[in-house]
Amino acid sequence: MAEKGIPDIVVGRLPIYLRALQRMRAENRHITSSQELGERLGISAAQIRKDLSQFGEFGKQGTGYSIDFLAEQIRQILKVDRVWDIAVVGAGDIGSAVARYQGFANRGMRVAMIFDNDPGKIGQKVGSFTVQDIEQIESAVRAAGIQVAMIATPGAQAQAVADLLISAGVKAILNYAPISLSVPENVHVQYIDPVIHLQRMTYYL
Amino acid sequence: MAEKGIPDIVVGRLPIYLRALQRMRAENRHITSSQELGERLGISAAQIRKDLSQFGEFGKQGTGYSIDFLAEQIRQILKVDRVWDIAVVGAGDIGSAVARYQGFANRGMRVAMIFDNDPGKIGQKVGSFTVQDIEQIESAVRAAGIQVAMIATPGAQAQAVADLLISAGVKAILNYAPISLSVPENVHVQYIDPVIHLQRMTYYL
Repeated sequence: MAEKGIPDIVVGRLPIYLRALQRMRAENRHITSSQELGERLGISAAQIRKDLSQFGEFGKQGTGYSIDFLAEQIRQILKVDRVWDIAVVGAGDIGSAVARYQGFANRGMRVAMIFDNDPGKIGQKVGSFTVQDIEQIESAVRAAGIQVAMIATPGAQAQAVADLLISAGVKAILNYAPISLSVPENVHVQYIDPVIHLQRMTYYL
Repeated sequence: MAEKGIPDIVVGRLPIYLRALQRMRAENRHITSSQELGERLGISAAQIRKDLSQFGEFGKQGTGYSIDFLAEQIRQILKVDRVWDIAVVGAGDIGSAVARYQGFANRGMRVAMIFDNDPGKIGQKVGSFTVQDIEQIESAVRAAGIQVAMIATPGAQAQAVADLLISAGVKAILNYAPISLSVPENVHVQYIDPVIHLQRMTYYL
């Protein structure tokens, strides 16, 4: 997964740093330090400095980081200084909640369309979107040049949906369905399954 | 985080193995191998054998794993051979979707109650649950002996809710709110923020 020799686990921490910086900015703050960021995030200051140093020099010794500058740099690194349109597949509870989610704004993401295969849902509104027929997914996703998708179908349909999305040009899939997907090497998949997270914690109880 | 010297990253893979085993079982399969599991999950067979060997001997060389036996062993290790009651906080889109989610069944989790602070939501039904007043959260969670919670409030309220839950005895929190929580060392937190996952992928596009 790593490009330019930067480990994926380091890449994975950048969105967390960015979220914290945006929160500080919303608190009307302008300067922070690796110590303060670390305390907020439960990550050591040394780790944060090491992670950031892989991408460049973003602060001066002793003066801390400009929150605006560092956030903008991380936005550029993560390519979220633009807005990515997202196709959502599955208009059930989870897909509908995601399509209506307000938290994408100002974070480089925007839901653009939502699909389902249920005749009772096709044509209905979910937030500001009209649910489209899954039969149209390939042509609609390709025509819009969409590269990012979220799958919120039942597990049994998720692989077939992923295959359709990939053939339409999707390169990044966030999968809410509770199965592991098989995808070509140039396609990225991340998973959200609340049970996986919960079971990881009950081990310690 | 690690107890018994087992790295948390290994613990984190066990729920993924368990999910794959349960899926195989649903396909009416009885025997599998680390090779087959690895192919399904995109993890090397050697990694799977090494992970499992930290907990015991679960298969015989050359005969593979009994799916039922291995699944049951992992269930015991993760302590999901019992059912954990969960308190959900926040009856908005995400909290409601999670409270109605069918995917907890047979995976050791059960939503038991849901809370909100909105007078327009308190007393309303979400799935089979009646939304309770957040004012009652401490007494209700403590009385039920609940140790696991999901926070699906706006970011600005999440820390205060976490503090209440922890004082009521909660030891594991799955946080859907887009902020990092401060918790005592004996409390476990996992995060679900779709934007974090999406931004980790756009880096590679």
